[in-house]
Amino acid sequence: MSKKITFAIIGAGAMGCRFGAQLLEAGFDVTLYDVWKEHIEAIQNHGLIVKRGEEEKVIKIEAYVDPLKDKTYNVLIVFTKAQYTEEALNKYSALISQETYILTLQNGLGNKESIANYVSMDRIIVGTTTYSSDLFKPGVIEVGGSGETLITNLRGTSFVVSKIEEALNKAFLNTRISKNTMIAIWEKLAFNAAINSVTALTGLTTGHVGNHPLGIHLLRKIVEEVAVVARYLDIVIDTESVVNTLLEISAPDKAGNHYPSMAQDIVKKKKTEIEAINGAIIREAEKCKISVPYNQSVYSMIKMIEDNYMPNQTNKFQQKILF
Amino acid sequence: MSKKITFAIIGAGAMGCRFGAQLLEAGFDVTLYDVWKEHIEAIQNHGLIVKRGEEEKVIKIEAYVDPLKDKTYNVLIVFTKAQYTEEALNKYSALISQETYILTLQNGLGNKESIANYVSMDRIIVGTTTYSSDLFKPGVIEVGGSGETLITNLRGTSFVVSKIEEALNKAFLNTRISKNTMIAIWEKLAFNAAINSVTALTGLTTGHVGNHPLGIHLLRKIVEEVAVVARYLDIVIDTESVVNTLLEISAPDKAGNHYPSMAQDIVKKKKTEIEAINGAIIREAEKCKISVPYNQSVYSMIKMIEDNYMPNQTNKFQQKILF
Repeated sequence: MSKKITFAIIGAGAMGCRFGAQLLEAGFDVTLYDVWKEHIEAIQNHGLIVKRGEEEKVIKIEAYVDPLKDKTYNVLIVFTKAQYTEEALNKYSALISQETYILTLQNGLGNKESIANYVSMDRIIVGTTTYSSDLFKPGVIEVGGSGETLITNLRGTSFVVSKIEEALNKAFLNTRISKNTMIAIWEKLAFNAAINSVTALTGLTTGHVGNHPLGIHLLRKIVEEVAVVARYLDIVIDTESVVNTLLEISAPDKAGNHYPSMAQDIVKKKKTEIEAINGAIIREAEKCKISVPYNQSVYSMIKMIEDNYMPNQTNKFQQKILF
Repeated sequence: MSKKITFAIIGAGAMGCRFGAQLLEAGFDVTLYDVWKEHIEAIQNHGLIVKRGEEEKVIKIEAYVDPLKDKTYNVLIVFTKAQYTEEALNKYSALISQETYILTLQNGLGNKESIANYVSMDRIIVGTTTYSSDLFKPGVIEVGGSGETLITNLRGTSFVVSKIEEALNKAFLNTRISKNTMIAIWEKLAFNAAINSVTALTGLTTGHVGNHPLGIHLLRKIVEEVAVVARYLDIVIDTESVVNTLLEISAPDKAGNHYPSMAQDIVKKKKTEIEAINGAIIREAEKCKISVPYNQSVYSMIKMIEDNYMPNQTNKFQQKILF
């Protein structure tokens, strides 16, 4: 790997743009890739506008809908919604060389399995980040707050992972290689399994759910089920810590008025992350013969809503679960 | 009780009007009472219009918003939504004499307990009916199909109950005094607990839910939980029969395109029957230390939605369940 690492961001949504912009400003070679044409064209024409409080920066950054010809990268950072991982890797596979590492910082389970169809396991790096970002209109993101990024390699040596850690830290993305990355991934999974599904079904904000005794009870039950499944996989997550984070983000001065993306997707009749989150939990639970009724309830209802506006989805997962 | 029984229908919605009209046509003295002014005035001005297929009948029937002065009835048939039982009995209590019997044909649990504040237990008759009726605009109902009505007295002799049975049969409301009435009530409870809540949360019709593998699975889980709770109360309900009924009504040629009233109430931001249905099941389950996660999930979400548009509801039940 050359001294100046080259990064391709696959999925240049709010988070992809944030990571891309900060890596570019830290001096790395970064290209954004996304299928959302309007957004990419806005970045091409006007630069990526990054708002942080009152401050506004215009970042000149390369951005494309289609993969550049004869171009490969040292590192692909995948930031698409989990339901688009396969599609995205297929579209951008030409950017992957024999030396490319792929880092997934996505939500949900199943991403590394999709990635394993494109690079060997020793070139897959998994991670999770608590940074946030919002994209309200094409070419414009709003960032703020601090966070932490944990990454780990699944196999092999960690030399390249150290290089990536170094790069992310240089980009102020507070990163650590941690043996606890899988714990962090499952804690985020539990977090998303709870708040995304309940806000999507009720149409209520995180603040409404996280401040209602029945909401807190339901969030906790969903998290507890995820913790039991994780435990079977030898991953010990901290239920109280996840519940506390859920309560914290429900505070009106935090993200209390927030509708998580799953809730927004339901309103916009788009495919949600439900399969990679609650769906994945149910499939893992099934393997260990654990009952996860709270996850099953919210999963079943969201899938039915989705199937009603996207009737051509395959039902392979459902068949597997139920029969 | 005089030979010609006098009936007051408390809650002259679709079902109350149907029973009232058929009893009147059978020669009984019937008065409708309801707080919905527009509907009562339509009946006063134009009669109650009863549509049955192509056929349309105008029934001249007494109907009032306020209780008539110095008038009492042999039998009150309570047909309000369960959440209005207390309110309705309070408003119409002047119609109750020392000799009045009260028959509840309502959904949910808790109705007979509310009624017990107004008459002694030996004057309470509980029942359930499979007849249906729709009220699309004030003064007009649409009826159709056959059905069955089961009634039973909670205590005392069944002489008066026999008289009421006779009256209902004369009104073609196919009625039996049955020791299995509590089973029928709980089977209807299980039915409503499943389909009302799931359609309310998903916004999908009975047809969508009852024809989706995940919907069928979820309905069954909710019914199974109700069956376990019922069993603890020595009431043995037939889970398969309830599930089959749910599948039958989901057929497109049946009520497949139907939105149960709970789903309609959520859309109209009205108080739903959730407390008397899933809420009551959860409270019974709590007493027997049974876990009912599927009922708890749908209950919690519907209560949160309700509390969001009706913020002044008491939370006494929630507190009891959770702490």
